[in-house]
Amino acid sequence: MYDLIEKKKEGRILTEEEIRWMIDGYVRGEIPDYQMSAMMMAICFQGLNEKETLDLTLSMRDSGDCLDLSEIPGKKADKHSTGGVGDKTSLVLAPVIASLGIPMAKMSGRGLGHTGGTIDKLECFPGFTTGLNEEKFMENIKNIGIAIAGQTANLAPADKKLYALRDVTATVNQMSLIAGSIMSKKLAAGSDIIVLDVKTGSGAFMKRLEDAKKLAETMVSIGTMAGKKTAAVITDMDQPLGNAVGNSIEVIEAIEALSGKGPADFMQVVSALGSKILMLAERAADEAEAEDMICRCIKSGAAKKKFAEFVEAQGGDASYVWDTDQFKKAEYKIEVLSEKEGFIQKIDAASIGRACMALGGGRERKDSAIDLSVGIYLCKKRGDFVKKKEPLAVIYASDRERGEEEKERVRNAYTIGAVCPDESGTIKAVIDGIGMNNANSFYI
Amino acid sequence: MYDLIEKKKEGRILTEEEIRWMIDGYVRGEIPDYQMSAMMMAICFQGLNEKETLDLTLSMRDSGDCLDLSEIPGKKADKHSTGGVGDKTSLVLAPVIASLGIPMAKMSGRGLGHTGGTIDKLECFPGFTTGLNEEKFMENIKNIGIAIAGQTANLAPADKKLYALRDVTATVNQMSLIAGSIMSKKLAAGSDIIVLDVKTGSGAFMKRLEDAKKLAETMVSIGTMAGKKTAAVITDMDQPLGNAVGNSIEVIEAIEALSGKGPADFMQVVSALGSKILMLAERAADEAEAEDMICRCIKSGAAKKKFAEFVEAQGGDASYVWDTDQFKKAEYKIEVLSEKEGFIQKIDAASIGRACMALGGGRERKDSAIDLSVGIYLCKKRGDFVKKKEPLAVIYASDRERGEEEKERVRNAYTIGAVCPDESGTIKAVIDGIGMNNANSFYI
Repeated sequence: MYDLIEKKKEGRILTEEEIRWMIDGYVRGEIPDYQMSAMMMAICFQGLNEKETLDLTLSMRDSGDCLDLSEIPGKKADKHSTGGVGDKTSLVLAPVIASLGIPMAKMSGRGLGHTGGTIDKLECFPGFTTGLNEEKFMENIKNIGIAIAGQTANLAPADKKLYALRDVTATVNQMSLIAGSIMSKKLAAGSDIIVLDVKTGSGAFMKRLEDAKKLAETMVSIGTMAGKKTAAVITDMDQPLGNAVGNSIEVIEAIEALSGKGPADFMQVVSALGSKILMLAERAADEAEAEDMICRCIKSGAAKKKFAEFVEAQGGDASYVWDTDQFKKAEYKIEVLSEKEGFIQKIDAASIGRACMALGGGRERKDSAIDLSVGIYLCKKRGDFVKKKEPLAVIYASDRERGEEEKERVRNAYTIGAVCPDESGTIKAVIDGIGMNNANSFYI
Repeated sequence: MYDLIEKKKEGRILTEEEIRWMIDGYVRGEIPDYQMSAMMMAICFQGLNEKETLDLTLSMRDSGDCLDLSEIPGKKADKHSTGGVGDKTSLVLAPVIASLGIPMAKMSGRGLGHTGGTIDKLECFPGFTTGLNEEKFMENIKNIGIAIAGQTANLAPADKKLYALRDVTATVNQMSLIAGSIMSKKLAAGSDIIVLDVKTGSGAFMKRLEDAKKLAETMVSIGTMAGKKTAAVITDMDQPLGNAVGNSIEVIEAIEALSGKGPADFMQVVSALGSKILMLAERAADEAEAEDMICRCIKSGAAKKKFAEFVEAQGGDASYVWDTDQFKKAEYKIEVLSEKEGFIQKIDAASIGRACMALGGGRERKDSAIDLSVGIYLCKKRGDFVKKKEPLAVIYASDRERGEEEKERVRNAYTIGAVCPDESGTIKAVIDGIGMNNANSFYI
């Protein structure tokens, strides 16, 4: 291991055998943390080329179980988001795609940060569980075309161990390591099609569009070289996605979207990701056809019906899908009024996220409890006009005092100006593996 | 610690408080190895500036005991070598300087590598011990002006722990870390004058003269800023120092040198280091005066007498100083004959060192046993003329077979050519802290 650290420190290329030996040894506990953290830091400075990044990803994929979905007929799809504020995309995308006959098999995590993750949000349905065993997971995909599981299998344990180490040694933000971490789990999850939602902007991990593009390209390249149909959509996180930020209020917004009443920016993301899946599955020839298919399955009610089936199949009370008033509401509704008149220029997503976490809607630590009923509803979004004393947002709080305390932060997240801002668009770029040159190496 | 790693990773400057907090926390076990190794790797890439290097060194100095030599009158001197093949300088320098009235207080280590360290060599005298307690250490310095101790005190434990970590994480060869490691121990050892012998060449840690200069400058700067009179001499390690490489044969050569019959290159090193001490102690106005003092104390026999006193004071049989035939000899003397005629161009010091280790004269691991009687005597050195079949060197071996095996390696260490090489000089440069600009930062 000493020699490998030195090799990378000097900027030389690690071979596939060296990378596999290192990852295997680390998982087995034969390579100590202090050597691996030195290696990770050397990688932060010297980078990994395309081949090394692929080898690292595949080694991590192979460190645990790999799901075999081959007994389910047709192409299976999976989706991953790099994480943003108000991101409830999976809740809509999965039933839309499943209702169009493409099975969605998704392994999800609980959230750490602003709001809960997909699993937390789904637990707003009483009785809902993601604790499916592999048999039930497969059965549900076969029968209704969707399953979202927490941890049915031991996927990419090397990534888990390595990420925990990187998290405490300031070696997280390296492009190849981030891409490898995400893709190792996606590849192990066994789908044929992988679409990636890479967020960019103030509320995202990748603040700059060029970094988001680089990450997307790296991940698409890995997926493609590993034999998966892979594409990425780069979407805006300079303001939260949709109007609802929280858990139950995001689920309600997702159900509204499935009823044809989703916010425009949110629907653009659903449509962009959904189109990519339909095209990669060769179910649509182009974007126009794909978007039309998505529109129709929402209008017909097929997607919403699929969602209800899915909730029920995983033990949840599906009557909530048809009557969202049943969701538990936070006791206090506190309006955040504008102090001036003008056009909303931007809404700092990170501040809204922090406010939601402060209300109890997110986790600060892995073992924190989460309050599913709290959140922030954004009445105004970028480009909207607001009058003085008109509500900018509504805070849903279980504790009045805490809710009042967050008013200031939510108000300050808004920038208001005299001129209507240019529409900058929610979809920033689309990157796919078709025609990707596998020989180039563009990583740092 | 996460924040500090990130700070250094981004190339920003760590404050004195941050460095002290980090070193203290690491020694107390509050900062784990895996975070420290990531920090060390970040330092390898981003470097430390002059102030950070000083702060790191002083933090490590302060992590354990600091010897207080103030009860001994006058300026006390200490010497350190970065290590080379055939380096028995301390055995001559210490009695020379002590006989001129400047106390030498030296903490030495056992060797790891080609030959033993100063302690191993001194143990060639039956009964000799470096296991002095602090009281005896002080008493000997007061009474006879020399003491060489192994580990009387817990000096710079932070350096010990950090060095062990760097040794396994490929983070050893960084200039500030090397300088800080050496100087933290020298500063804790309490002398007023520190002279450093920085070796350069194929047999040294610093292969290139410019690196040796940089290391010397860094160490002299640290010493000077820490209030010590500090100087460095950069000396040649493109061939072994002197003619003897081993343990008892090096002691014999040292005694010959104290009798006025030392090899020229070796005497140049003794003289350069000794002159620096005499000038820093303000006992000599210039080099000529200092060299004259050194010459005279050897000629008069005062230095040799001092050496015998010192050996006796630490329990050794001083009669060996007067009759070196008593030293244990290896059973087999194997001549290495030249296969051609010509001038010696160079003698690869690293190869000679490896041959000596293979004979059992050095340690491969900390717990290896060492054979004090073996070694290699170089009959010919750079610039000498050798005839065909004339001996280049003599191997002293305890095992005939092993000795025969090493003949080839020793012969191959010699490069022989038709033309006498230019005399390249043993003293490459002298660096002292007088007039050193403390504000500049020249480190990587």
